[in-house]
Amino acid sequence: MNFNIRAATKEDCKDISRMILELALYENMTDQVKISCEELEHDGFCQNPLFECVVAEVPEENKSREGFTIVGYGLYFYTYSTWKGRAMHLEDLYVMPEFRGIGIGKCLMSTVAKVAKENHCARLQLSVLEWNTPSRDFYATLGAQDLTVQEGWHLIRFDGQSLDDLGNDGPKN
Amino acid sequence: MNFNIRAATKEDCKDISRMILELALYENMTDQVKISCEELEHDGFCQNPLFECVVAEVPEENKSREGFTIVGYGLYFYTYSTWKGRAMHLEDLYVMPEFRGIGIGKCLMSTVAKVAKENHCARLQLSVLEWNTPSRDFYATLGAQDLTVQEGWHLIRFDGQSLDDLGNDGPKN
Repeated sequence: MNFNIRAATKEDCKDISRMILELALYENMTDQVKISCEELEHDGFCQNPLFECVVAEVPEENKSREGFTIVGYGLYFYTYSTWKGRAMHLEDLYVMPEFRGIGIGKCLMSTVAKVAKENHCARLQLSVLEWNTPSRDFYATLGAQDLTVQEGWHLIRFDGQSLDDLGNDGPKN
Repeated sequence: MNFNIRAATKEDCKDISRMILELALYENMTDQVKISCEELEHDGFCQNPLFECVVAEVPEENKSREGFTIVGYGLYFYTYSTWKGRAMHLEDLYVMPEFRGIGIGKCLMSTVAKVAKENHCARLQLSVLEWNTPSRDFYATLGAQDLTVQEGWHLIRFDGQSLDDLGNDGPKN
């Protein structure tokens, strides 16, 4: 099957929004998704976008059972390492189940890596759930290191009440 | 002891650069540090800065044994969650050993959290090494969740050869 990887446009946000939910469903975390299609349109396509995105598109004759031709996406942004400088974080990588196994995921990854290299990023990082063995194997096959296993890095988060409390406890202006 | 937390200026980069090395030394990873003071000055203080930073400063009469008055820093940047929108990542938090135990670390954290909230970030995230129990306890005391322990998130990285290979394997323009 033919497919094409290209930079996302504002018009793709409806599809991206749909696939964000599909990915969260796979991760058993749909209750966490608060972002709307309109917010995505704004955040990704305003003057100083908060992220960039590539999508995978199939020809109309190969559309999904529900009629979709945008069947995968990779959403990323730039970060910074105080050891290496400019870096990139891949927030989401997703391919619809019925389009897996034909190289779309690898092609999305390669495209994102190419953008990272063109923008002088020394690293491309992402997070994956421990039980998500297919994805962990996929990244390992592509040559990635699991820094949690190899170096012991843990991901720490403040949000909701803990972020409010921490912010309120700061120095008063 | 009095101390002041303030936004870093370009002139602070020499001190920040010194403390980046001190932190890497503590993490047994000095061989990884490739960034120069000049790169920090550019990356943090150009027109579209790649990071922001706050520093902790003590009065001249309380300067460190080596004569430094900038004794801690927190370096952060904005990220994006496809579930929650705008977010913040704290890349480094550091207080020089002889200035620990007087609340500078907590004050740096609170200041960063306040900036996150003012900029509508739903989350403040960071990474910590598993064996770094003092830091893990510090973040836990402040109310943070360890997402690696609680949800099983692993940190994955492509760099060096693996990033080159991945980028070269992408679709040819």
